[in-house]
Amino acid sequence: MTYRLRLPGPTTVPERVRNAMAQPVVNHRGPEFSAIVKEIETGLQNIMGTANPVLLFAASGTGVMEASLANTLGPGDKALFIANGQFADRFAAIAEGLGLQANLLDVPWGDAVDPKALSARLAEADYQAVIAIHNESSTGAVADLEAIGAIVRDTPALLIVDSVSGLGGIEMQQDRWGIDILVSASQKALMCPPGLGLVSVSEKAWKIIDVNAPRTRFYWDFRTARDNAVDGQTAFTPAVSLGFALCEALRMIDEEGLPNVLARHARLAAALQAGGTALGLPVFTRSPIRSNTVTVLQMPDGHDSGTIVRHLYEQYGTVIAGARNKLQGTVVRFGTMGYIDEADILLDLMYLERTLDALGLPVTPGAALAAAQESLRGS
Amino acid sequence: MTYRLRLPGPTTVPERVRNAMAQPVVNHRGPEFSAIVKEIETGLQNIMGTANPVLLFAASGTGVMEASLANTLGPGDKALFIANGQFADRFAAIAEGLGLQANLLDVPWGDAVDPKALSARLAEADYQAVIAIHNESSTGAVADLEAIGAIVRDTPALLIVDSVSGLGGIEMQQDRWGIDILVSASQKALMCPPGLGLVSVSEKAWKIIDVNAPRTRFYWDFRTARDNAVDGQTAFTPAVSLGFALCEALRMIDEEGLPNVLARHARLAAALQAGGTALGLPVFTRSPIRSNTVTVLQMPDGHDSGTIVRHLYEQYGTVIAGARNKLQGTVVRFGTMGYIDEADILLDLMYLERTLDALGLPVTPGAALAAAQESLRGS
Repeated sequence: MTYRLRLPGPTTVPERVRNAMAQPVVNHRGPEFSAIVKEIETGLQNIMGTANPVLLFAASGTGVMEASLANTLGPGDKALFIANGQFADRFAAIAEGLGLQANLLDVPWGDAVDPKALSARLAEADYQAVIAIHNESSTGAVADLEAIGAIVRDTPALLIVDSVSGLGGIEMQQDRWGIDILVSASQKALMCPPGLGLVSVSEKAWKIIDVNAPRTRFYWDFRTARDNAVDGQTAFTPAVSLGFALCEALRMIDEEGLPNVLARHARLAAALQAGGTALGLPVFTRSPIRSNTVTVLQMPDGHDSGTIVRHLYEQYGTVIAGARNKLQGTVVRFGTMGYIDEADILLDLMYLERTLDALGLPVTPGAALAAAQESLRGS
Repeated sequence: MTYRLRLPGPTTVPERVRNAMAQPVVNHRGPEFSAIVKEIETGLQNIMGTANPVLLFAASGTGVMEASLANTLGPGDKALFIANGQFADRFAAIAEGLGLQANLLDVPWGDAVDPKALSARLAEADYQAVIAIHNESSTGAVADLEAIGAIVRDTPALLIVDSVSGLGGIEMQQDRWGIDILVSASQKALMCPPGLGLVSVSEKAWKIIDVNAPRTRFYWDFRTARDNAVDGQTAFTPAVSLGFALCEALRMIDEEGLPNVLARHARLAAALQAGGTALGLPVFTRSPIRSNTVTVLQMPDGHDSGTIVRHLYEQYGTVIAGARNKLQGTVVRFGTMGYIDEADILLDLMYLERTLDALGLPVTPGAALAAAQESLRGS
């Protein structure tokens, strides 16, 4: 039985990337690896839409989320979290773990913030930072960062964005949209194994970071990371093999062409969403803010999504996600990002239909694949 | 020209480990990876000499050094750093970065602390922690942790030990020696690429950590790491591929037998040190505290070690280290750890002799290899 990794991350890593990762390790301070770091920076600047230096950390996404706060906020500072899902909650929990004051702008899960509500909230108090999740992978909702950026840009607050599950699968224009700190990670649409945290910092944020020197940080210090990045170095020993992997993955994205990569994500997500809907599992996320990288489907009342997740794994080697939060049991989540193609979507739907049928849910045989086919034809 | 990675870390990663790393990524929360995490824990417990749970972090060694302080010390707490080299200084700098009070017990570089001096210092004030470097890779000095542990054990202070460049190459008996927090990393004697930080915590330390809840930490929180480790999980997305690598490397160590691995490190280090001495480059480190994992050789007066490092790289593809600290220019450093054998040592010495000769230093042709051969014969 084939093992099919169809999670909303970590995602499938192409053989080409895995082979690059398996190269012999080189001196992390030598010219061979500096060239890799420099190439990674160029590739990520293109995908991030930024001219900022790109900082690499041996860490998972949560680590660089913490870093974005540790570098900019201190005790007493107020951060406003646009809270529309699990990863926004985690980001706020990190702030509390660091002793910061985390204020929530609550938004229904599956929805995204109304820019007017953000404006109103920012008028009520002085915040040092606004935190938004680009792609909330717990709900499949995409934030309108252009609108959010236009609001935050004219305030003293920094706009910090988690695009762990968005970058490389959904458009990102950090500089144009006015995002001050963008954090992401290697294991989602960027087609790499987990273990690399990625950060890009705006001029507005550097001014805060450089002035607010006495923050409690060392490993996460963006200043030493920036100073080392100038020479294609990292402040501390980098995850060399993961660097090889990311460099190769970025070459693949460059070869396909970023606009084509983003369009492929959009087509495949739409097809999976059409197929899921045809199976009687409506998309959880409100239209039109549905993610192209994570598809979240809702269970009929009275059915536990955990049984679907288990059946898909046990019968079809297909690993998807349920929820480890308040949506537990009510949704299934598929990654539609990174190294995927039409075959993945068709197999997902075929196995999903068989699973629903086996579990006694009503299905119209073939309806899901027909809907996906129709969606793919039109795109 | 062959590329020979002969640094004091990152070290050469065996093909078998690199192939394991290149396996397809699996669900980081699924049974396949839990089994890997559990096997890693068992393997590391053996090498660490501990029955503690082992915590894995996607991070380099510096990250888990920071974590060891962030979990145990808060503002106003006093830590005593046994300062005999660059990594002790870095550890103290981390403490300052976290706003802690770092007190140094200064020891000449190349030497190790006299246990009596530690006792005297601990009698002068109440310290919450004593920090020691097991293997100071900047100088090649090994700490007598058994003696240090016997002193700290009877105080309220925690003994925190950095064994990044020791573990797997030099004996470690965490529980028997009374080490409270042991931190290490994947890329040295453990034969893996960098990117995994390893931590083991004693009961004495857990009591502090669990009581001192309001420390500023999230990513580094040992409590959530411990709670997840019970089920073979990590708190945040683990570096899955590096986990595959570490699991395979630990199998190799187990197959060779840990006592044999440690004996091999001792034999090879002694041979390299004998050869270097025969070349007129005496061992920098005081006998008998010389490391089996890092050999530090001293230059004759007036000669810059940087020229040797460059010549070995450019002419023989052999990457060794100089120093990026106050020893800059005066020493060369070779790793003698991990995946190495007699051939590595013989090649090191042959190329080193040629290099010295090319740079106009006096050498006795063949003396280094003869000394190494003699050393290997006797061991």
